Amino acid sequence: MRKESTILRPSNNGNRYELTSPTALPKAGGFLWNQKMMIQITCRGYATAQFMQPEPAKYAYAPNIEAKTFMQPEPNYYAHHPGRFVYIKDLETGQLFSAPHEPVRATADRFVFSVGKSDVAWAVEHMGIRVEMVMGLPTHDVAELWTIKVTNISGRPRRISVTPYFPIGYMSWMNQSAEWNDDLVGVIASCVTPYQKATEYFKNKHIKDKTYFLCEIPPDSYDASQQAFEGEGGLHNPSGLQEPKLSGSDARYETPTAAVQYRLALKANEEREYRFMFGPAYDEAEVRTMRSRYLSKQAFVRTADEYAAYMARGRGCLRIETPDKELDNFVNNWLPRQVYYHGDVNRLTTDPQTRNYLQDNMGMNYIKPDVARKAFITALSQQEANGAMPDGILLAKGAELKYINQIPHTDHCVWLPLTLEVYLSETGDYGLLKERVHTENGDNFTVFERFSRAMDFLLELRDERGLSYIAQGDWCDPMNMVGYKGKGVSGWLTVATAYALNLWARVCDHERATDLAKHFRAGADDCNAAANKHLWDGDWFARGITDDNVTFGIKKDTEGRMWLNPQSFAILGGAASEEQISRILPEIDSQLNTPYGPVMFAPPFTKMREDVGRVTQKAIGSGENGAVYNHAGVFYIHSLYQLGGQQDRAYNHLRQLLPGPSESDYRQRGQLPIFLPNYYRGGWKEFPRTAGRSSQLFNTGTISWVYRCVIEGLCGLFGDAQGLVVRPQLPSGWNAIKVVREFRGATFQLDIRRAAVQDVVVKIGDKVQPEQRITNIKAGAAYQVVVLVPQ
Amino acid sequence: MRKESTILRPSNNGNRYELTSPTALPKAGGFLWNQKMMIQITCRGYATAQFMQPEPAKYAYAPNIEAKTFMQPEPNYYAHHPGRFVYIKDLETGQLFSAPHEPVRATADRFVFSVGKSDVAWAVEHMGIRVEMVMGLPTHDVAELWTIKVTNISGRPRRISVTPYFPIGYMSWMNQSAEWNDDLVGVIASCVTPYQKATEYFKNKHIKDKTYFLCEIPPDSYDASQQAFEGEGGLHNPSGLQEPKLSGSDARYETPTAAVQYRLALKANEEREYRFMFGPAYDEAEVRTMRSRYLSKQAFVRTADEYAAYMARGRGCLRIETPDKELDNFVNNWLPRQVYYHGDVNRLTTDPQTRNYLQDNMGMNYIKPDVARKAFITALSQQEANGAMPDGILLAKGAELKYINQIPHTDHCVWLPLTLEVYLSETGDYGLLKERVHTENGDNFTVFERFSRAMDFLLELRDERGLSYIAQGDWCDPMNMVGYKGKGVSGWLTVATAYALNLWARVCDHERATDLAKHFRAGADDCNAAANKHLWDGDWFARGITDDNVTFGIKKDTEGRMWLNPQSFAILGGAASEEQISRILPEIDSQLNTPYGPVMFAPPFTKMREDVGRVTQKAIGSGENGAVYNHAGVFYIHSLYQLGGQQDRAYNHLRQLLPGPSESDYRQRGQLPIFLPNYYRGGWKEFPRTAGRSSQLFNTGTISWVYRCVIEGLCGLFGDAQGLVVRPQLPSGWNAIKVVREFRGATFQLDIRRAAVQDVVVKIGDKVQPEQRITNIKAGAAYQVVVLVPQ
Repeated sequence: MRKESTILRPSNNGNRYELTSPTALPKAGGFLWNQKMMIQITCRGYATAQFMQPEPAKYAYAPNIEAKTFMQPEPNYYAHHPGRFVYIKDLETGQLFSAPHEPVRATADRFVFSVGKSDVAWAVEHMGIRVEMVMGLPTHDVAELWTIKVTNISGRPRRISVTPYFPIGYMSWMNQSAEWNDDLVGVIASCVTPYQKATEYFKNKHIKDKTYFLCEIPPDSYDASQQAFEGEGGLHNPSGLQEPKLSGSDARYETPTAAVQYRLALKANEEREYRFMFGPAYDEAEVRTMRSRYLSKQAFVRTADEYAAYMARGRGCLRIETPDKELDNFVNNWLPRQVYYHGDVNRLTTDPQTRNYLQDNMGMNYIKPDVARKAFITALSQQEANGAMPDGILLAKGAELKYINQIPHTDHCVWLPLTLEVYLSETGDYGLLKERVHTENGDNFTVFERFSRAMDFLLELRDERGLSYIAQGDWCDPMNMVGYKGKGVSGWLTVATAYALNLWARVCDHERATDLAKHFRAGADDCNAAANKHLWDGDWFARGITDDNVTFGIKKDTEGRMWLNPQSFAILGGAASEEQISRILPEIDSQLNTPYGPVMFAPPFTKMREDVGRVTQKAIGSGENGAVYNHAGVFYIHSLYQLGGQQDRAYNHLRQLLPGPSESDYRQRGQLPIFLPNYYRGGWKEFPRTAGRSSQLFNTGTISWVYRCVIEGLCGLFGDAQGLVVRPQLPSGWNAIKVVREFRGATFQLDIRRAAVQDVVVKIGDKVQPEQRITNIKAGAAYQVVVLVPQ
Repeated sequence: MRKESTILRPSNNGNRYELTSPTALPKAGGFLWNQKMMIQITCRGYATAQFMQPEPAKYAYAPNIEAKTFMQPEPNYYAHHPGRFVYIKDLETGQLFSAPHEPVRATADRFVFSVGKSDVAWAVEHMGIRVEMVMGLPTHDVAELWTIKVTNISGRPRRISVTPYFPIGYMSWMNQSAEWNDDLVGVIASCVTPYQKATEYFKNKHIKDKTYFLCEIPPDSYDASQQAFEGEGGLHNPSGLQEPKLSGSDARYETPTAAVQYRLALKANEEREYRFMFGPAYDEAEVRTMRSRYLSKQAFVRTADEYAAYMARGRGCLRIETPDKELDNFVNNWLPRQVYYHGDVNRLTTDPQTRNYLQDNMGMNYIKPDVARKAFITALSQQEANGAMPDGILLAKGAELKYINQIPHTDHCVWLPLTLEVYLSETGDYGLLKERVHTENGDNFTVFERFSRAMDFLLELRDERGLSYIAQGDWCDPMNMVGYKGKGVSGWLTVATAYALNLWARVCDHERATDLAKHFRAGADDCNAAANKHLWDGDWFARGITDDNVTFGIKKDTEGRMWLNPQSFAILGGAASEEQISRILPEIDSQLNTPYGPVMFAPPFTKMREDVGRVTQKAIGSGENGAVYNHAGVFYIHSLYQLGGQQDRAYNHLRQLLPGPSESDYRQRGQLPIFLPNYYRGGWKEFPRTAGRSSQLFNTGTISWVYRCVIEGLCGLFGDAQGLVVRPQLPSGWNAIKVVREFRGATFQLDIRRAAVQDVVVKIGDKVQPEQRITNIKAGAAYQVVVLVPQ
C-alpha cells in the first residue's frame, strides 16, 4: 500500500484514484462519458466537455471563438478556460478561496481529487470549511449533475458565502445572452449558431443553442454576465464577491456566465448540500424536462445507480491477479473502461477514420461482440465499387468526411482482417461472413466477398515492383508527401498487406475456399518478397520509397533512420525470417527503445524533409518528435507475443505503456493511471526535460490492442473455431497468476502456474485436456481450469 | 477646454487623445497600421495584431486555437488575451505592479493612455516609479517598435526589477516552441502552420511561422515558456517574479512567451530607457535583418519620422473651423485617418466585398484619387460576362472568395455609379471612362461600357413586377432568406437601382450618350414606379417581398416594421415624391431615431423570422438588435443633404454618429473618439443598459460617406465638370465657419458666413462669382473665398 503522504492513492478495488495535491499534477483529470457526451475535468476544476448533435458541440465555451478541430494533445488550460468552480468567502474576515483549486489557487489544508469510474469528486479543506464536490452524468442525456457539500469543520459558528461559478464563455458572435429564469431556477444562456449559406440554417435550427445552469435550491443572488461577476477584481478575486450580493446581471451580447450565491450561517459541524445541473438544451421546455427528470436528491441517487450499471456493462472479459498489482488494477478496471468508451461512442465523431472505427470496435468484441458485428456491416456498407474502403465511416445522417478524412490514404482495407480475427476468435460466428451487404453504389455482396474484394484492392494497389502505393498517407497519416505524385510506396503497408492477406487466407481455409486461400497467400508471399528485395536494409526494413525513388528509414539516414511499424508488421506478416528477426530486435532495443517505450522512429527530425512530408513537421519541435506512439508500440508487443518466446520483452514493453508506476513517473507523465494516452513525448536524448510527458489524449487505437495483448498474449487465452486456446506467455519472473476469463457465455477461472512440464498442460478439474484448448464450451457454465506452464 | 480631472483629454492639435483611467473605458484603445499590418491595443495592454502574407495572420496568439474568421465586433478580452505588458517589482518590499494596467490591475497613482495618430503611449506611476511605454510601427515592415522608459520618482534610491512580458500564446498544434537566442538577443518562437493536403504545403511553406521579441540591451534573465513564467502564481502574480531571476526556460511544444528581466538600482530621478521589437519572421535571417534595420535609438527616431510622414500623406482635403470643436477635431484629424486606413489596406483582406472595396476607395478620392482610379480598373477587370460584379474583388495572387463572399448577393453593381460620382467630382477625369479593361473571361470593354453593362445587369435582375431580386442577400447581407428560392425581391435594391441608374444617366449625358441616358433614366423610372406600386405602405417603403410573396417592413409587422435604407434610397433615387418624403421623415424620427442615431430597423426582432433570415438571428439578442448601423445612418444623412433644406436634421444625425461628445457618452460607447465604429447597439427601449455601446470595430463603409457628407453636404464643396460648386448647408445655429479645401491641386480658404443674401453668394477676393461655383481652377494656386449664406 502507498503511504498516506503520497500524492496519488488508488482505491483497493481499483475503482478510484485520488490525488492529494492540485499542483503536483496540474493537468491530471478524470473523464466521464455517456453515449452522447464526454467531459474531461482536471483536478483544478478546468473542464472540456463535448456532446453530439450530431457533430461535436459545446455548452461551455472558451472566452473567444475556438477553432473547431479534432481533439488536440497536451491540452492547454488558462485563466478563463471553461471550468467548474465554487468560491467560499468568510463573511467576517473577507478571506476567500475556491474549490477545487482554480481560480483563486489558495493552498488548501487538505486536497483530495478522487477519480472514479462513474464519478469525479473532490474534498478540499481550507479556512475551516470543507467543500465536497461530486460530478456525475446521466446515462442517456447530456447533462452534468453536481453535488456541492459545505461543512463547517472549524469548531465554531461561521458566516460564509458559497458561490458556485460555472463560466459559460463566448458562445457565438450571434446573439449570445443569458439571464436568470425564476421559473426554472437557474441561468439560461442563449446564442445562435452562425451560418452563412441559407441551406445551413435548416441544419442548424435543430442545434441546442442554450446552456442552462440549474439550482435545486434558489440562491440568494446571481450573476449571468461574466464581466459583471468578474469585474476589475479578476477571476482570482472577483468584484462580484466584494459586494454583499451578486449583482443580478443579465448578459446581452456579453459573455454569459453562471454564478449563484448562497449566504450561510453554519454552526460548528453543520453542513449544507446543494445540487446543480449544467448542460445544453434546445429550448426552455427541454430545460424544464431535464430539471424535473434529474434535479433532486432521489433522482441523483437513481441516476448514479443507473450510470454505475452502465459502466458495469463495460467491465470486459478478463480479471487477472498477478505479481504486478498496478497491471492488475489497470487491466481489471481502467483498460476495459477505455476500450468501452471507444467502442460505445466512436470518439464522439460522426466520421471516424476507417482504421480507427474498425480497431475501436475490435475492442468491443471483448465487451459487446454484437456491437462489433454491426460495425463490420456498417463499414462494409460503405465500401467502394473497386473494393477500397473509404477514409472514414459515416455514422450519422448528413455526416461528411472532414479534416484528414478528405486526404486519400491507402491502408484502410488492411484493418478488416486484423480486426475480424478477434471477432471470430471471440464469437466463432463465421455466419457473419454470409451476410449480404448492400452499398449505395448499388452492389450487393456477402461479407466474405467484400473482404476478398478489399484484399484484391490491396493487391492491385501496388507498383510494378510489388510495393504498396502510399498516396497522401497510410496509417501514419502525417507522412503525406512520400507518394503524393502517385509513385511513392510504403514499406509498412507492403508488409502489412501481407499480414492482412495471410490472416484472410486462414479464414478462406475455414470457409473451404481453397483457391482463394492460395491466391491470397501467393499475394502475401509476393508482397513479402518485394519488401525483402527493395526494402530490407541489412538489419531492418525501410519505411518506404518516395515518388522520386528515394528509399528512407534506412542506415544512411541521419534522421528518421529506423521506424518501428515496418518491423512489427514484417514479423506479423511473415516478411521477416527468423534470421532477420534476430537482427531486427536488437536494433529496436538500441535505436528505438526509451524509458517510456519504443519511439515510432528515431532519430527525430530537426527540420522538414520535403519528400516525406508532414510527419517531419510534426516531428521537428518536440511534442510528437519521434514520439512514443503507443499505437505503434502495442503492435510491436503484439508481434512479440505472436512470435512467441519473447514474453519478457513483450511484458517489459507493455509495462512501459502504463502511465506509472512510480510517483516520479506520474509527475513526468502528468496524468493519473486511468487511461493510456496516444503518445508519450519522445526526444528523450534531445529534450530530456519533456520526454515521457503524456499527450493527455485518451482517444487512441492503442487500447483495444493492449487489451488483446493482455488477453491473448500474456494470458494466452484466445478463441478459435473449436474453442478456447490456452497458451499463456508469463514473463520469466512470474511463477503463477490467476485469471477469470469470460468467453462465449461461459466463465473460466484459471489457475496458471509453473510446473515441471515440457509444454503447457491444461486441466479442467483433474482432467488433462488433449490439447492446449478447451472445447465444447457451454454458455452459462463455469470452468475451473488449472494451467501448468514450463518452468 | 476639459478640466484636468476628466478621464479623456484631447490634445490641442487633435493629434492625440489621452485617457487617465484604465477602468473607466476598459476597452478603449488605439490602432496603428501600415500597409502590411494592423494593431489594435487597449489602454490596459491587451492587443490584437494581424498582418498579411497574403491572408491575415498572427504573431501573438490566444492561448488556445482561435477560429480564423472575420473581425468580430465588441471584442472580448480575458486574462490570457494577447497583450504587451511590463511588470515592475520593488526588490526591497516585494511589491508588484504592471503597466499599462493588466495583468496585475493595481490602481496607479497616475495613469495616462495617450493615443496619437502615429503612436500609442502610456505613462503610469505607481510605487514611486514612472513607466512610460510607447509603441510605433515602421512604414513598410511588419513589426512593433516599443520604447519602455522607467524613472525613479520616489526621491530615494530604489532597487527594482523591470520585466517586459509579451505573451506569444498558442501558435499551432504543430511544433510550437521557443527559445532564447543569444546572437539575436531575444526570444525566437517557432511553429508550423498545419496543413493536411499536400498541395497546401507549398503554399504554407512561405508563411512566417516565427515570432521574435528582441531586446536592444541584453536582459539579466528571461523565460520563453508561458508556464514557467506564470507558474502557480497566475498572471496577476507570476511565479517567475517570485524568484531572484527568471528561469531561462525554453518552450517545447509548450505555450511560448517572451518575458525578459532587468534588475536595476536607480538613484533618485534616475531613468532607464529600453527598446524592443516584436513581430513575425520567416527565419532567423529575417529576424537579423529586422534587428539591424530598426533596433536602435537612431533607427526608432528615423522610423517614427517616416511613419509620421506616411500618416501625413493621408490627412485629407478638408480643414474646418466651426462652432463645434469636437466635430472640427474629428473631421480634421481622425476621420481622414480612418478613411486613409480603409483605402490604403482594404481592411487587411485579400477578397474585400465588392461594395466595401468600392466605397473604401471612394474615400481615397479625397486623399489619393489615383488609388481610387486603380481600384475601379481592378474591380472592373473582374466583372462577369453578363455584366454582374462578383461578390468580392480578389487582390492577391491565389486569393479566393471566402466567408460571406461565397453567398450570392445582388447589389454589387449598384455601388459603381455611387462611388464613381466622387471620383469624377474630385478629379473631373472623365478620361477614366475611355480606358479599356480586359477580364479573364476574355471580354474587353471600356470602363464606360462596363458601367453600362453593370447597369443593364441591374435592370435584368428584376422580376415581372419590376422589382429587384435579392437572392441570398443584398447590402444587408444577413437578410439571406428573403429570396433564396429565387423569387423574393428587395425593396431597398429596387430604389437603390434607380439611384444608380440616374447617377449613371448623368454621366451618359456628359459623354453625350443621349440614348443611353434616356434608356437608363427610363429604367430608373420603371424601378421607382414598381417600388411605388408594390412597396409603398402609406407612410414609408417596405423592405422587400419574400419568395412566398410576403411583404415585410410594413405597418402590420410588429417586428422589423420600418427599415431605414429603403427610405434613404427612395429619397436619393427619386422614388419618393415630396409628399411621400414629408410622410417618411417624421416616421423615421418617431420610429427609428434614438439618442445614438437612427437604427437600421425597428422594432427589433425577438425571434427568428424564417422567411427573412439571418438578420433576424443577429437581431434577436441585443448587440446588433436593430442596431444603429452607422453605414445606414450616413446614407440617411446623405439623402438629407441631397434633398436640401434639411441641414439641421442632417447635422443632428451626423453628430449622433460621433463617439462623443459628453463624458457619459464616451463611457456608454466605451471608446475613444478616434474612429467611427460600424454600429452602436440599438435596442434602446428593450435593453437600455447596453444601448449606444460601440462595436469597437473600425472597419466600416460608413466613414467615406461621413467624410463626403461633411465635405459635400455640410460644407457644400463638391466638384463638377466645370469646377468647384459651393453650396454650404450650415445648421441653423451656426453663423459662420472657416474651411480649407484642397481640390484639384488648388487650395481654397473659405470664409463662410451668414449675411443678408437671398441665396449663396461666392466671392473670390471682392469679386462675386456668376454662379455658386469656382471655375478655371489652377493647380497650385491658393484662393481666398468668401461665401455668404442666407440668414
